[in-house]
Amino acid sequence: MQSMKAIVKARPEYGAVEMITRPVPEPGFGEVLLKNKAVSICGTDVHIYKWDAWSQAHVKPPAIIGHEFAAEVAAVGPGVSHVKVGDYVSGEGHLVCGFCSNCRTGNGHVCLSWKGIGYDVDGAFAEYFVMPERNIWHNDPDLPPEFGAIQDPLGNATHAVFRADCVTKNVAVFGCGPVGLLAVAVLKAIGAAQIFAVEHGNQYRMDLAKKVGATYVINAADTDVVKFIKDHTGGAGVDVAIEISGAQQAIGNAIDAVRMAGDVVLLGTPVEPTAINLASKVVFRAISLHGITGRRVWDTWFRMKGLLKSGTLDVAPIITHSFPFDEFQKGFDVMMSGQCGKVVLTF
Amino acid sequence: MQSMKAIVKARPEYGAVEMITRPVPEPGFGEVLLKNKAVSICGTDVHIYKWDAWSQAHVKPPAIIGHEFAAEVAAVGPGVSHVKVGDYVSGEGHLVCGFCSNCRTGNGHVCLSWKGIGYDVDGAFAEYFVMPERNIWHNDPDLPPEFGAIQDPLGNATHAVFRADCVTKNVAVFGCGPVGLLAVAVLKAIGAAQIFAVEHGNQYRMDLAKKVGATYVINAADTDVVKFIKDHTGGAGVDVAIEISGAQQAIGNAIDAVRMAGDVVLLGTPVEPTAINLASKVVFRAISLHGITGRRVWDTWFRMKGLLKSGTLDVAPIITHSFPFDEFQKGFDVMMSGQCGKVVLTF
Amino acid sequence: MQSMKAIVKARPEYGAVEMITRPVPEPGFGEVLLKNKAVSICGTDVHIYKWDAWSQAHVKPPAIIGHEFAAEVAAVGPGVSHVKVGDYVSGEGHLVCGFCSNCRTGNGHVCLSWKGIGYDVDGAFAEYFVMPERNIWHNDPDLPPEFGAIQDPLGNATHAVFRADCVTKNVAVFGCGPVGLLAVAVLKAIGAAQIFAVEHGNQYRMDLAKKVGATYVINAADTDVVKFIKDHTGGAGVDVAIEISGAQQAIGNAIDAVRMAGDVVLLGTPVEPTAINLASKVVFRAISLHGITGRRVWDTWFRMKGLLKSGTLDVAPIITHSFPFDEFQKGFDVMMSGQCGKVVLTF
Amino acid sequence: MQSMKAIVKARPEYGAVEMITRPVPEPGFGEVLLKNKAVSICGTDVHIYKWDAWSQAHVKPPAIIGHEFAAEVAAVGPGVSHVKVGDYVSGEGHLVCGFCSNCRTGNGHVCLSWKGIGYDVDGAFAEYFVMPERNIWHNDPDLPPEFGAIQDPLGNATHAVFRADCVTKNVAVFGCGPVGLLAVAVLKAIGAAQIFAVEHGNQYRMDLAKKVGATYVINAADTDVVKFIKDHTGGAGVDVAIEISGAQQAIGNAIDAVRMAGDVVLLGTPVEPTAINLASKVVFRAISLHGITGRRVWDTWFRMKGLLKSGTLDVAPIITHSFPFDEFQKGFDVMMSGQCGKVVLTF
Repeated sequence: MQSMKAIVKARPEYGAVEMITRPVPEPGFGEVLLKNKAVSICGTDVHIYKWDAWSQAHVKPPAIIGHEFAAEVAAVGPGVSHVKVGDYVSGEGHLVCGFCSNCRTGNGHVCLSWKGIGYDVDGAFAEYFVMPERNIWHNDPDLPPEFGAIQDPLGNATHAVFRADCVTKNVAVFGCGPVGLLAVAVLKAIGAAQIFAVEHGNQYRMDLAKKVGATYVINAADTDVVKFIKDHTGGAGVDVAIEISGAQQAIGNAIDAVRMAGDVVLLGTPVEPTAINLASKVVFRAISLHGITGRRVWDTWFRMKGLLKSGTLDVAPIITHSFPFDEFQKGFDVMMSGQCGKVVLTF
Repeated sequence: MQSMKAIVKARPEYGAVEMITRPVPEPGFGEVLLKNKAVSICGTDVHIYKWDAWSQAHVKPPAIIGHEFAAEVAAVGPGVSHVKVGDYVSGEGHLVCGFCSNCRTGNGHVCLSWKGIGYDVDGAFAEYFVMPERNIWHNDPDLPPEFGAIQDPLGNATHAVFRADCVTKNVAVFGCGPVGLLAVAVLKAIGAAQIFAVEHGNQYRMDLAKKVGATYVINAADTDVVKFIKDHTGGAGVDVAIEISGAQQAIGNAIDAVRMAGDVVLLGTPVEPTAINLASKVVFRAISLHGITGRRVWDTWFRMKGLLKSGTLDVAPIITHSFPFDEFQKGFDVMMSGQCGKVVLTF
Repeated sequence: MQSMKAIVKARPEYGAVEMITRPVPEPGFGEVLLKNKAVSICGTDVHIYKWDAWSQAHVKPPAIIGHEFAAEVAAVGPGVSHVKVGDYVSGEGHLVCGFCSNCRTGNGHVCLSWKGIGYDVDGAFAEYFVMPERNIWHNDPDLPPEFGAIQDPLGNATHAVFRADCVTKNVAVFGCGPVGLLAVAVLKAIGAAQIFAVEHGNQYRMDLAKKVGATYVINAADTDVVKFIKDHTGGAGVDVAIEISGAQQAIGNAIDAVRMAGDVVLLGTPVEPTAINLASKVVFRAISLHGITGRRVWDTWFRMKGLLKSGTLDVAPIITHSFPFDEFQKGFDVMMSGQCGKVVLTF
Repeated sequence: MQSMKAIVKARPEYGAVEMITRPVPEPGFGEVLLKNKAVSICGTDVHIYKWDAWSQAHVKPPAIIGHEFAAEVAAVGPGVSHVKVGDYVSGEGHLVCGFCSNCRTGNGHVCLSWKGIGYDVDGAFAEYFVMPERNIWHNDPDLPPEFGAIQDPLGNATHAVFRADCVTKNVAVFGCGPVGLLAVAVLKAIGAAQIFAVEHGNQYRMDLAKKVGATYVINAADTDVVKFIKDHTGGAGVDVAIEISGAQQAIGNAIDAVRMAGDVVLLGTPVEPTAINLASKVVFRAISLHGITGRRVWDTWFRMKGLLKSGTLDVAPIITHSFPFDEFQKGFDVMMSGQCGKVVLTF
């Protein structure tokens, strides 16, 4: 039996993310074995590193973490029919049942019994890992592996953008972390009229937002965000506000900055309840609030494939750091510094 | 100059709703003069009667109140081209500009400068009143005037129901006042799978809800509403929750009772802010909240016309009281008792 | 090994539909064994009986025919997780791959490699048959088996009706065969404003159309269909025309009878090409033509479940004949006479 | 009374497009007087020049032609409230009633009694002309007049593109005349995955198509168009085919080149009926055909405003010729040569 390197959460404490040796797994019925080309570090991986409440509820150390990847198919298990050895693929990291009412109505992203690789079950930060065939997505052969690896967060951004009608419209993105930056890039690629990128104080990320297409970058630390947006939209507000930060102030601004009959897309997850004056802010203004999570299976992936093919999506500047897989600690360090976009590990 | 009877808010105080004599108005450019056949009393009229904060901000006594009506065209002003004397009509009570970005995108119900007849300007509780031609809606000749008169609240209900995908679905209506009852009737007419009508203690209205089509009537005063709904929907919850009461408990139940990826339609207007745990209740459950107000112009009216034509909409039981116009005080009294559906005044 | 009765197309010729004995099949990986309660005869089965060109291209005698059924789960194969012995079910008769671009975008009804049970592979006209678990649909326990058995054609009708916006609208159905009759019943259940049922001469079916909800039944053999429809829709035409007959005259009438910006849903399959004046009839009138086939998986099935639950769908009159399974020849005879709605065989 | 220069169709014959002097018109109730900055020549103007059957049915010489313009408001009539002298505007050239069922359902582009300026009534090829206030569209102050002038055909292209889901998708445009070229530019601006521009032999326009964003330009004169498209879309075909040529071969190719469950948008107007095998090409492939005409009022205009604001729409290369208004004959000559994109006349 071959062995491989893998990054695990070793113990239930802060840090304790370590490289170990594990046997290469074998693909079961309907499963494929993947050999990684590149993986990337999600904010979720950082949560696991820091061992927050969410992590403690999901991860059972020792467990292989990670769920963003691009890989080559190394072997296929019995019953696999549409994937073959040598295929260049990524995959949907949410394992879903395919039978529940959500799965059967195109809402597999909220499958009643979904599990996430890299936290509910062993993940992708390893030389090899297995995945069900039905989670596999074929990449275009000429897609660089580091682009292939970030399709999970690019998918979050794409899902958010396509939850409302953003094409040709004025849109604000609250929060310029990696997903926010990707949302800005997607909005630029699909012809948003004006893109307002709102960030609270992180100059590194504000510069990136400008670079990938924001019409205006607003620093919420020193600017009246709602006034700025209204001043630049004829007083009406944006057609769509996409909230990715989870900060209460940002959520309030997103609701206030959207025009009447507009849409607020909520992707950020605030820890505390949010007080909303539903009468004056939602009902009389006829706005909608949409919670979203994950990626639509497979609608979001097709959108991404089209965007990556179009030549108009500029994600390269967002991949700010790349390290060899062995130097994963550097990746976690830069993620925790906030002075980065997406951080990739290569094999 | 002819004179006519009209009901006015006479003075800025509780009550003071009186019948007076006024000159019959003349239609200006693009306006028509209407001779009423029936009017009905809205909850808004009761607010004006009680002289609450909202009324004080809108109504300038002495002013003719009322905005729900069915009438015959008595005269047309210059520039009127599509309405003629003798036409049997109702009309949209929101006067809109037709030019703002909301009006020009099919969102005239939230026109940036709309005014409501019967509170912002003189209303319809009179033998005659004028209205712009472009607000006129032609009724089917065989529509009874009392049905014609309630199209404003029927339109609120219809707008609410069509804001989400209710046809063939499980739907809960929170609040069995007149608009809630009309929503139940509309849901029954369009083939909702199961209709859960939720009311807090008013037995009269719970009986009416059952009569016009509710599959289940739930008394929130003595039942765990969310549990009941989940028990009757395989544990999933309803596809759509329509909240018309404005009560905080009902809003909370509406959000909890909707299935993942479902829709909550908010029509009720709570006085205080509502605390919502956006992460666990909205984002991770991928639900949408939609504020709505008024009627879509004219989409909602076409839907209503179709429903009234279909023969499947049963609104007759909801019109529980009818009084001659002169006996309007009886109408207000029964409205304030809560022991009624819609209350109509006839001419 | 147990044996069972099955109806096969025995030889490649007109007729030759015979009852034989076959071994009860065994469910393979991911498959379930079904014990039939009721089946119904599709027009496709009649085509196979008559051995037309389409049948010759699909069916390889001897083969078990039939694809409309309601059954109980008698056994489950390995890997089956969401279906258990004793479940009361029907199922989607199109076997699809689940992986192609159509399957992965909610268009499984046009899977690039779909096969139909009862013509491409062995079918459901037998005491027992096997089906993949993922094709199984759980029926409500109180759904009568003969209703459960007709969900395939009811699904065609439901798919057609929901392909355009029919709720509260004026709709015409061209062709009052079983699927047309089911479409009329569905339209009635969802509050269509007026339903125009068009048939060419078959009085039996015209009477049925009236019985299940048609506002007007038009005999195309002696009436100017387009004129009649325009006369009853204020000159505008219907919002939606659903064409199920495949007759050239009906297709022409459907296009002419639809209002500007309306929708024509095409389900009938004419043998010859149809000449359409695209400029004057489609482009300048801004109408859409939608080809549809099969049922959306699973959206259409959820719609049906809701309709059957609503209590407003009246399909009972359409099931005009029921015979014991052994007397299948009587069923085929009445189907070929045209003096019937749906014909069911019971076990 | 001031006089002005105007271009008229002088006599009912080929050519006879001449510059004459006319009194400057005065704006009536609800009308505004416009002073032109730029106009552009539509294919319709060329039809009028050539005096084809359509022109003979619409134009009553002598009549001012032209309907594409950008202008400044020179005066406003009584009753005008939202437009003022000095405003920089363009306008919707279809005069609609605002009251018919089409106008009231967002389908004003097919108003039951619409008239087109420049053929049904006097047009815009003059120093001054009047238009109803409600047809006026405010341009962004920094929009170059030649861009403002082409919003009518850009609107046709935008309407076509937004009739189906083109964003991130594979799309083919059949016909590279000015509207086809604009469609290619719009598709590029909104992130279409791959854009296939199909033209029959006109090298000048094929070069332009490439310049404004076509991924592939296909010459139908020497290439198997359907095969080429399928070869570059994994065998599936494009998601959307937009047909603007009106040529029978192109229509056939558009239908064959679209993937199953895809959309064909028909804007071209063939003279003869088109024979379509509905069963094999439309029904079993579950595709939709959408006729479209004009621009949605005002949805299409808002889309255009957003595109022009986005910075991603590259229409400059399509405006290939600009002449002073007096030299209009040069404009008509180059239009008739086919060696051009849009041709603008400036004041």
